[in-house]
Amino acid sequence: MSTQVNVGVIGAGRIGKLHAENLAYRIPEAHIIAIADVVLEAAEKCAADFQIPSAVKDYREIMENPDIEAVIICSSTDTHSQMIEEAATAGKHIFCEKPIDFDLARIDRALEAAVKAAVKLQVGFNRRFDPNFKRVREMVAAGKIGTPHILRITSRDPAPPPVEYIKVSGGIFLDMTIHDFDMARYLIGSPVSEIYAAGGVMVDPEIGRAGDIDTAVITLRFENGTIGTIDNSRKAVYGYDQRVEVFGSEGMVAVSNNTPDTAVYSNAEGVHSSLPLFFFVERYTESYIAEMKEFIGCMQQDKKPSVTGIDGRIPVVMGYAAIKSYEENRPVKLSEVE
Amino acid sequence: MSTQVNVGVIGAGRIGKLHAENLAYRIPEAHIIAIADVVLEAAEKCAADFQIPSAVKDYREIMENPDIEAVIICSSTDTHSQMIEEAATAGKHIFCEKPIDFDLARIDRALEAAVKAAVKLQVGFNRRFDPNFKRVREMVAAGKIGTPHILRITSRDPAPPPVEYIKVSGGIFLDMTIHDFDMARYLIGSPVSEIYAAGGVMVDPEIGRAGDIDTAVITLRFENGTIGTIDNSRKAVYGYDQRVEVFGSEGMVAVSNNTPDTAVYSNAEGVHSSLPLFFFVERYTESYIAEMKEFIGCMQQDKKPSVTGIDGRIPVVMGYAAIKSYEENRPVKLSEVE
Amino acid sequence: MSTQVNVGVIGAGRIGKLHAENLAYRIPEAHIIAIADVVLEAAEKCAADFQIPSAVKDYREIMENPDIEAVIICSSTDTHSQMIEEAATAGKHIFCEKPIDFDLARIDRALEAAVKAAVKLQVGFNRRFDPNFKRVREMVAAGKIGTPHILRITSRDPAPPPVEYIKVSGGIFLDMTIHDFDMARYLIGSPVSEIYAAGGVMVDPEIGRAGDIDTAVITLRFENGTIGTIDNSRKAVYGYDQRVEVFGSEGMVAVSNNTPDTAVYSNAEGVHSSLPLFFFVERYTESYIAEMKEFIGCMQQDKKPSVTGIDGRIPVVMGYAAIKSYEENRPVKLSEVE
Amino acid sequence: MSTQVNVGVIGAGRIGKLHAENLAYRIPEAHIIAIADVVLEAAEKCAADFQIPSAVKDYREIMENPDIEAVIICSSTDTHSQMIEEAATAGKHIFCEKPIDFDLARIDRALEAAVKAAVKLQVGFNRRFDPNFKRVREMVAAGKIGTPHILRITSRDPAPPPVEYIKVSGGIFLDMTIHDFDMARYLIGSPVSEIYAAGGVMVDPEIGRAGDIDTAVITLRFENGTIGTIDNSRKAVYGYDQRVEVFGSEGMVAVSNNTPDTAVYSNAEGVHSSLPLFFFVERYTESYIAEMKEFIGCMQQDKKPSVTGIDGRIPVVMGYAAIKSYEENRPVKLSEVE
Repeated sequence: MSTQVNVGVIGAGRIGKLHAENLAYRIPEAHIIAIADVVLEAAEKCAADFQIPSAVKDYREIMENPDIEAVIICSSTDTHSQMIEEAATAGKHIFCEKPIDFDLARIDRALEAAVKAAVKLQVGFNRRFDPNFKRVREMVAAGKIGTPHILRITSRDPAPPPVEYIKVSGGIFLDMTIHDFDMARYLIGSPVSEIYAAGGVMVDPEIGRAGDIDTAVITLRFENGTIGTIDNSRKAVYGYDQRVEVFGSEGMVAVSNNTPDTAVYSNAEGVHSSLPLFFFVERYTESYIAEMKEFIGCMQQDKKPSVTGIDGRIPVVMGYAAIKSYEENRPVKLSEVE
Repeated sequence: MSTQVNVGVIGAGRIGKLHAENLAYRIPEAHIIAIADVVLEAAEKCAADFQIPSAVKDYREIMENPDIEAVIICSSTDTHSQMIEEAATAGKHIFCEKPIDFDLARIDRALEAAVKAAVKLQVGFNRRFDPNFKRVREMVAAGKIGTPHILRITSRDPAPPPVEYIKVSGGIFLDMTIHDFDMARYLIGSPVSEIYAAGGVMVDPEIGRAGDIDTAVITLRFENGTIGTIDNSRKAVYGYDQRVEVFGSEGMVAVSNNTPDTAVYSNAEGVHSSLPLFFFVERYTESYIAEMKEFIGCMQQDKKPSVTGIDGRIPVVMGYAAIKSYEENRPVKLSEVE
Repeated sequence: MSTQVNVGVIGAGRIGKLHAENLAYRIPEAHIIAIADVVLEAAEKCAADFQIPSAVKDYREIMENPDIEAVIICSSTDTHSQMIEEAATAGKHIFCEKPIDFDLARIDRALEAAVKAAVKLQVGFNRRFDPNFKRVREMVAAGKIGTPHILRITSRDPAPPPVEYIKVSGGIFLDMTIHDFDMARYLIGSPVSEIYAAGGVMVDPEIGRAGDIDTAVITLRFENGTIGTIDNSRKAVYGYDQRVEVFGSEGMVAVSNNTPDTAVYSNAEGVHSSLPLFFFVERYTESYIAEMKEFIGCMQQDKKPSVTGIDGRIPVVMGYAAIKSYEENRPVKLSEVE
Repeated sequence: MSTQVNVGVIGAGRIGKLHAENLAYRIPEAHIIAIADVVLEAAEKCAADFQIPSAVKDYREIMENPDIEAVIICSSTDTHSQMIEEAATAGKHIFCEKPIDFDLARIDRALEAAVKAAVKLQVGFNRRFDPNFKRVREMVAAGKIGTPHILRITSRDPAPPPVEYIKVSGGIFLDMTIHDFDMARYLIGSPVSEIYAAGGVMVDPEIGRAGDIDTAVITLRFENGTIGTIDNSRKAVYGYDQRVEVFGSEGMVAVSNNTPDTAVYSNAEGVHSSLPLFFFVERYTESYIAEMKEFIGCMQQDKKPSVTGIDGRIPVVMGYAAIKSYEENRPVKLSEVE
């Protein structure tokens, strides 16, 4: 019989709380021993809410706690790679939020450390665990659409984050499109070799002044020949828009948005239905649980996670290729930014 | 601050386990003290799975436990009304699965006991808590469709229960349609005065030999003039079919089935999408949690449940009217079966 | 090679004009020789619009014209049966709008006359030629849904006709439901044996004062065991609502409304799509052409029409059963009104 | 009162026949005087089918016929520009199928000739008259989606044309995407300034050997800032796939495919609906009629067509930019190919 896995959570911000709640209430196989946050009150609040025995300010207490088998890294991006190294050195399994880092050398060091320590490393590309996208992947993998020819991803947020966040976000390609880059790789099952990114500031000039763009259309060329497009916007007034479509020699599979209900209301003005679920917390509720279940299960059954360190690295490379492509207005090979 | 409510669960069958799991993992405000089942092993298994401190064979241990504030009655139907009386006498709040009883006099005694003891009594018409049906009710109540004229309910199971179950089920109208009778009352917000039921044995002759039917089409007349129809089948090969539509002077609102994903697959043969969620456990996952959250919340905030004893009684009356109508092939007023 | 069929049109009202236009511009195999209307100006207008050589006041000129092979009877209902008899006597093939008559004896005489004269008689149940309903029938006939168990028809008009019309319409069951009675027979392919009709005045009290109702829910029992429901309203504010669903042992097939476009508009308030096509002229454009093409084709190829005299008679019988059922509030066998 | 417009049709191939049938049977305001085809039998067949008095081999008989007010040019592409010049010189109004020519200088001469002769010139971009796309344009023009940010066009054929045709087609961008280039301009209402085209041979290596590609993904930059993508395939096994979506600051509008019926069939395997209408003849039936009605109406009311010569020229320029972009794998400004 498998016993509970003892985990420590680092970071009690929005995503840290989300993982803590899931670990506490949805995943009986996990037991949270401690939670750390540089703002101690945040950690303490989380501990109280989710019955976590210990709340600490310094994440090193988690690294050094011999009872903790695995760490859930939900702190700010600039701390991820170092924490991975430390956790690996401490022999702890690692779940790390995306992106691992904005620096490829640091990512490489972190990945190496995990390999050397032979600990499991899973990166938080939760959308792979969404029932819609999983279904698409399964159908593509099963050959239902034949050879893939065209991939279309629409990924639009309901509202942009604060400009202060945007300034440190790494830019739209590394902050937002990174999820779609991973989705593209996951759905097609082939590496991307070249990227062309067009974009602009259409939503808010403040975002432009912060040095970023808010709207983008990206063309991907896969090694297996498939051509993909991603379109991103920081603001869809109708809510979180998360759709994909894969077209191939034998058919097409597409998924649309999820809604809170299936109500269709017809009156003299038209036929009306509900908006998509508002944002990632509502939309990806189940996928956050599923990715964490997989992580805990990998430890219990000593399996390799399906989304591992290299899957965290490649989308960052794609992000750099997109940035370069946007800046130089030309297609850029991934090999150019390695 | 509200403290946890201590509950005891009676019955560790399918629905008892479902409620126990929800109370254990989804409703932090509740704490299960004990679970009882005539098959002790079932209670023990449940206790182990959901970290319940005590598993007992005799439900009276729960009734007599002074720490238990509320009981969740999930035992067989023939025990419900007596247990309600005993729980009321013991001063415990009561959540009882539907139907309360097949005998109106026993229902009345049970309801009276709960009133006299001033305990809360909530009946398990979970579908009222489903986001789809709630949305329809909200829109009807808000006058979005004007005055309701026509109600349509489609309610079809994916597969009939075992014939042994059917023999003790009370028949399709009291076992299956009872949920739709409640839904009809809930959606329209007006009492039903007359019922006409047509039906037959179309799915399985064994069901006919057991004295029941498996397919029914029921016409309802509401006191406010609305006319409703319900259609039931014990077997829809494509899965659990749960749809409603309310049509009125200013519009219509309809809800369709929920599916596990939104995937649409197009190939040379056609356009294909996913079947509805299989059965009530999958389809009404959220509504079971929501009804239990409401029950716990009613105790914490000393509120009256929205689905109470009388809401448990009326659908039984409607069931008897439907049976009489089917047998005599004529519309039957509810007053005829009181 | 088939030559053109020479036809005469009787009645230049809304439906007469519609058939004349179709015969003139959509059916090259037909040639309209003359059009008659008691209001000569109406006939003349029609003749001018659709290049018809002759416009007359007296329909007998059409009956007596030896060049005319077939008549299209679109005059008022009270003239249908007599005109069928006259046309049959004159050896002309007959297309007659529904209903043939409100009097069964007169219908029988008309049908007999057509049989005796060995002329073709097609009744204008155009909806059978609608691509949606044809597809449902084909799938049912092909056994795709197995044995039919439940039929649901929703048939709602966008707005009631003038009360003056309602007074002479024969009432909702003979004027409006008659189409659905035919559809029910067509889809299931089995006779209806018993009808239960509930209804009321919900749309407009004027309709009640005219002795009619405007809302109805009808239960049908078919000889093969299928149970059906029809719901009718004289006023759906969102437009013409024409849906059917057949549920059986192996599956279900359903058709929804047709819309002028597939546009889906999402804004901050919701997701909005277009209303159904407004009324029968817009909705059944293609079916009116198709039924007339079939009629012309039957003459060219000497085939029997698929909707013949008996198909015009039975829905009238069903209408009388529905009226009796509504008046006596009990299920009525068709044999009671023969 | 407007009298009939006398027209001559040049070309009795697939599209010539289609226009001739529409003019003959759907547009009473037009009268076809003569039809010409280099294959006289084809012209004669058409004349017989659509009651056209004269069938000729030499199109110049149409140009020289003083009774003919307008010509419908449906001959092979290489003859279009010369015929426009000749028709203009003869003072006849001109409807010309797309593309006008593959040579910009010849297009310019043809356009100039039409301007000088002050004859109307309409180019056959029929999709603008499709109810779906018109609705999108209307909503965009009405500001319903605010400022457009992203345009998505999916345009996939059910099957590639014969390789012999492909060899003379001008290539996918000038033969197939040209319609989407026009649609892009029409929907956004702003000129395109730059194009990036990715593509490949995925459907049939024969197409590659013929020097063409069969799959393409194109990025468009509009002068007003909108970014668009078009994806094309010569072969969608599920049929003709014609969808567009415009996303903007205040919302999104999207249109999906049209189907022959709305039937939805549910069985134990899934939920199945009908494939899109097969190809352009079925899909754009109404738009072909509507564009011709507009052309005839423009003459009757002396109005300028909404799709004129310059609208025929610009998509050709866009096609050359796409070719250059594909060949050089870089974004190409339209000004580079002028």
